[in-house]
Amino acid sequence: MSNIDLILQAQKYGKDYIYKTPLLFNSRVNQIVGKNIFIKPECLQVTGSFKFRGAWCAISQLKNENKISNGVVAYSSGNHAQGVAAASKVLGIHSIIVMPQDAPKQKISSTINYNAEVCFYNRYTEIREEIGENIAIEKKLTLIKPYDEDLVIAGQGTCGLEIIDQSKKLGLDKAEVLVCCGGGGLSAGISLALEKFAPSFKLRTCEPEFYDDTARSLKSGKREINENKYSSICDAILTPTPGELTFPILKRNAGEGLVVTDSEVLQAMKFLYQHYKIVSEPGGAVAAAAAIFLKHKIKEKNIIVVVSGGNVDSEIFSKAISEK
Amino acid sequence: MSNIDLILQAQKYGKDYIYKTPLLFNSRVNQIVGKNIFIKPECLQVTGSFKFRGAWCAISQLKNENKISNGVVAYSSGNHAQGVAAASKVLGIHSIIVMPQDAPKQKISSTINYNAEVCFYNRYTEIREEIGENIAIEKKLTLIKPYDEDLVIAGQGTCGLEIIDQSKKLGLDKAEVLVCCGGGGLSAGISLALEKFAPSFKLRTCEPEFYDDTARSLKSGKREINENKYSSICDAILTPTPGELTFPILKRNAGEGLVVTDSEVLQAMKFLYQHYKIVSEPGGAVAAAAAIFLKHKIKEKNIIVVVSGGNVDSEIFSKAISEK
Repeated sequence: MSNIDLILQAQKYGKDYIYKTPLLFNSRVNQIVGKNIFIKPECLQVTGSFKFRGAWCAISQLKNENKISNGVVAYSSGNHAQGVAAASKVLGIHSIIVMPQDAPKQKISSTINYNAEVCFYNRYTEIREEIGENIAIEKKLTLIKPYDEDLVIAGQGTCGLEIIDQSKKLGLDKAEVLVCCGGGGLSAGISLALEKFAPSFKLRTCEPEFYDDTARSLKSGKREINENKYSSICDAILTPTPGELTFPILKRNAGEGLVVTDSEVLQAMKFLYQHYKIVSEPGGAVAAAAAIFLKHKIKEKNIIVVVSGGNVDSEIFSKAISEK
Repeated sequence: MSNIDLILQAQKYGKDYIYKTPLLFNSRVNQIVGKNIFIKPECLQVTGSFKFRGAWCAISQLKNENKISNGVVAYSSGNHAQGVAAASKVLGIHSIIVMPQDAPKQKISSTINYNAEVCFYNRYTEIREEIGENIAIEKKLTLIKPYDEDLVIAGQGTCGLEIIDQSKKLGLDKAEVLVCCGGGGLSAGISLALEKFAPSFKLRTCEPEFYDDTARSLKSGKREINENKYSSICDAILTPTPGELTFPILKRNAGEGLVVTDSEVLQAMKFLYQHYKIVSEPGGAVAAAAAIFLKHKIKEKNIIVVVSGGNVDSEIFSKAISEK
């Protein structure tokens, strides 16, 4: 089945479970920024991030095809974790989640609250992919990868279908769609939907400084790797390199990658708090930061900004909204 | 024209300007609380509160009927202020807003940013109604009252029409609708819509401790007055007594009033932040506090909670989300 057919199928699987997030706009912001900004708040999605889309579509479909016997396993810093845990809970499937010891507290407690069995690892000395694969083999569980999995990419693509539908209702014929990018599952999924149903819309990946592997890869044409010697507050999207499946899709569809600093991200979180009354996490506010601080790099008047998640500890959120 | 016809007319006036806010739900919260909670986030409304609905409907309609010559004047602690200022700006009408000196900073700056002329008063020594009426006479401006005005009540009623439409799509046949209540414009407007189109839905007013004039009035059957010697963080809804026009409507339609403490309100703000990723102000979170802390007083399984606004200074919001 082609990627686009998988997305349309994912939409059917998600119909009664995935929340159709609105498209917010604020005319005063548009005046300040000088662009028409539309916010797609995936922080309002089930589990507080877009990750539920992919997790739900993959697990419900695999279950339906009798491809899950003993349960599922996933590795994640926290948003895919909650997505997999929540989807598994609804579907009555056992889930084990491999999470870094230093993941945000809120993400750990939510994952546990969705009945998942959480297994911690040290992200400086251990490799999560290995741990996850070993658990899958040992316990005969189905591994649900965070982005390098066609069904997961298709689930994230349902966000793209909604953007297209909502933009058409607003009469937008052209736009740039800014998406926070880690492994590239959300960006690839949305770009597939745009490629098919809104080819005049351009996808732009947005990343934090020092974790700009996708921007550099789009430039060089091959999958570049981050040095991993710098820190960033954007825990949700700190991946080492673009996905094997996601990168070829992005290479075909995405424009030049946009890169912002942690300080710009904090200011964007405040901006979203102040003007749209939504809660975003650092990794979820990267695209908003790009819309505000890199608008000179964006050609179109209409900018659609995907705020990919809102699972943030209160210390960081308080810090962001107190920024001058 | 009857109240309900005014609401239907307001809906037409608001069609392209009032934002249709979603109805959020979170299955995990429902498990924790043991009720089905649906959040109507009016904090996502234009200007960050439901007040834009009433202001827009009243001003656009009066303008259309050539009843505004030199502009409008309004008195407000901040949300009606922004609603009137924003609606006037879009309609090209001059606005003067009478605001207390100690209104939240964010509310003052936003009102000024919507091009309003702001006139401050001391709310301990001066009477805002008198100041507003004097300005109206002196400068030949049209006074837009915050709640005791049929067109304003009708505008707020459009929120009720949306609730009914969204509830029907979810298959809800019964519910209690919890609404934050100051002068009663929003409660009265929503209750009129329910009375006509969803008579099995019951409206419940929600107020902060010491400002429970509506709850006491509903009990005694006549308009009771608050002592005004206590403080509250719920600046948006600290009115002395129910409105002349709104109270008879509420007396006919509302159930027993619900009253919560400031501490419960802060916890509700954190709850909305954590589980729904929305920003609420104290006065806007009162109904959510009632849903959480007074659920033993709510008969129905389905509770619709109107979060009436999100215009909050960052100091208070940080305090709320740091609550244990």
